[in-house]
Amino acid sequence: MEKMKLKMLYSGMKSEIDIIEKELEIALNSSSQFLNEASLHLLKAGGKRIRPVFVLLSAKFGHYDIQQIKNVAVPLELIHMASLVHDDVIDNAELRRGRETVKAQFNNRVAMYNGDFIFAKALDYMTRIENPKAHQVLANTMVEICVGEIIQIEDKMVLQQNLRDYFRRIKRKTAILIASSCELGAIASGASDEVVLRLKRFGYYVGMSFQIIDDILDFTATDRQLGKPAGSDLMQGNVTLPAIYALEDDAIRPLIEKTLAGPISEGERMQLLKAIRKSPAIQKANALSDLYLEKALKEVSYLPDHPVNKSLIDIANFMGKRKF
Amino acid sequence: MEKMKLKMLYSGMKSEIDIIEKELEIALNSSSQFLNEASLHLLKAGGKRIRPVFVLLSAKFGHYDIQQIKNVAVPLELIHMASLVHDDVIDNAELRRGRETVKAQFNNRVAMYNGDFIFAKALDYMTRIENPKAHQVLANTMVEICVGEIIQIEDKMVLQQNLRDYFRRIKRKTAILIASSCELGAIASGASDEVVLRLKRFGYYVGMSFQIIDDILDFTATDRQLGKPAGSDLMQGNVTLPAIYALEDDAIRPLIEKTLAGPISEGERMQLLKAIRKSPAIQKANALSDLYLEKALKEVSYLPDHPVNKSLIDIANFMGKRKF
Repeated sequence: MEKMKLKMLYSGMKSEIDIIEKELEIALNSSSQFLNEASLHLLKAGGKRIRPVFVLLSAKFGHYDIQQIKNVAVPLELIHMASLVHDDVIDNAELRRGRETVKAQFNNRVAMYNGDFIFAKALDYMTRIENPKAHQVLANTMVEICVGEIIQIEDKMVLQQNLRDYFRRIKRKTAILIASSCELGAIASGASDEVVLRLKRFGYYVGMSFQIIDDILDFTATDRQLGKPAGSDLMQGNVTLPAIYALEDDAIRPLIEKTLAGPISEGERMQLLKAIRKSPAIQKANALSDLYLEKALKEVSYLPDHPVNKSLIDIANFMGKRKF
Repeated sequence: MEKMKLKMLYSGMKSEIDIIEKELEIALNSSSQFLNEASLHLLKAGGKRIRPVFVLLSAKFGHYDIQQIKNVAVPLELIHMASLVHDDVIDNAELRRGRETVKAQFNNRVAMYNGDFIFAKALDYMTRIENPKAHQVLANTMVEICVGEIIQIEDKMVLQQNLRDYFRRIKRKTAILIASSCELGAIASGASDEVVLRLKRFGYYVGMSFQIIDDILDFTATDRQLGKPAGSDLMQGNVTLPAIYALEDDAIRPLIEKTLAGPISEGERMQLLKAIRKSPAIQKANALSDLYLEKALKEVSYLPDHPVNKSLIDIANFMGKRKF
């Protein structure tokens, strides 16, 4: 059902999304059969293509030429895909969206090089962009994402975390790439500096709201909805917002500590999930996500009047409110 | 002694090499203390900086401006460094140049992300380059290197290899990056198309010759000279040129098969090294390296007369003749 809703939100952009999908396929082609199989596996696994969609929507504020816009949309999605592949190595994830990860299917090293290859292909694709500002934004986005990956390792297993640590992580993990998608769509279409800045901020806030929801769902959704066991984040050592709030509760704290300390039984996992789900942690985290969502919507109100504003609002609401 | 020889060859470029060294340090700086330590560790481990040197020498054929030239030299060396870090993950290498690898000191995941970070920083640095042709060459170089890494995995442990497989691997592993260094130095200085092409070919042949020597030394040099056990390539499953030739010898073939099949004893390693060292495999491999070296020197003869030609010849000879 959620997927249908998203499809409706994308409905006006189907032909453009298809163009980008086709370009992604072409971009990932290589002389290695092995690499092609791994990449195709990843492409087929789909994904919401949220970043290209934000590029397309943002580009409506300038001269909308899909041939120009795809030049930033494709590398952005490639960077996202590459970071997913590398994330799977770091998280030892065996499943993503209910499918085997590249890493599980092949092995860690292949996944590492497949990620490298996709990064390099993003770069290769970027050489088509003539705008130096767009180059800089993309390059800087990649640096920030990579620094974020290291920060995520640094913060792993650390109980003593505050909200600032968490925000710093999700900013780099998610928000920056969505902010850059909006920014680059606007830049590629030659929108005004004011519009570029507003859209960048909008994307940033949407990204923050979205990632918080994602981190909540890891506790509240079913294994089936997630395509992996609920509570995976914590079991992998990632202390997310609901966990940070739940740590304040003396009854839940030992459960969290135990989860971080080592493999827990299925019964312990159920106990953990139950405790967190009924604690105020989820509500508090939801409130924070809402706050970011509001900030995002406020940025839209500063944008010039345009039919696309409604789409931005609808997608932001969808991302900040989704149930799984 | 070899290091001294190289220093002599570099003597006319000391101040420029220092500028590049300083820039590398600045480029690798980040907001993560952890990342900075890992990168600094890598920088301090040194390296011959052969790629920047080829950039500098090639740039002499045009308008030589170090501020322009460093913009291609720095990302090239960063790409090389990043690929070394990722190579260490793939090879499970614990030592490189006698020092612990980043991977050994921290762990595989940090090494993966440290490599990603360095790649991204290369990209970040590249945004300073205005020449779109230079961009394309760098991006394409990265793609080819990444495809090469996957090919290296595909070819691992495979006994049934011919020279073509080997050449395909070392081309991507080494020759392309040196070819691109020469090509980019010439492009960045605005040299003529003819000079760009000649230098690119020169770099390619030097790179092939150099890698063959490297692969020979892995069998013929001492553990101390290598900073790791001689025979490591084969023990890690990399079937290099001397091994391909040695496989033709019915007395050595079982030793090679055994080495690839699993951990061998120290005695078996000594037996393998002794057998290969006195077989014709080493001579044959040396002859092939010489052939590439000759091709490289021939390209220099087609270049316009310039004092730098002698430096190109000297460094090519050094790289194609070095004893460890």
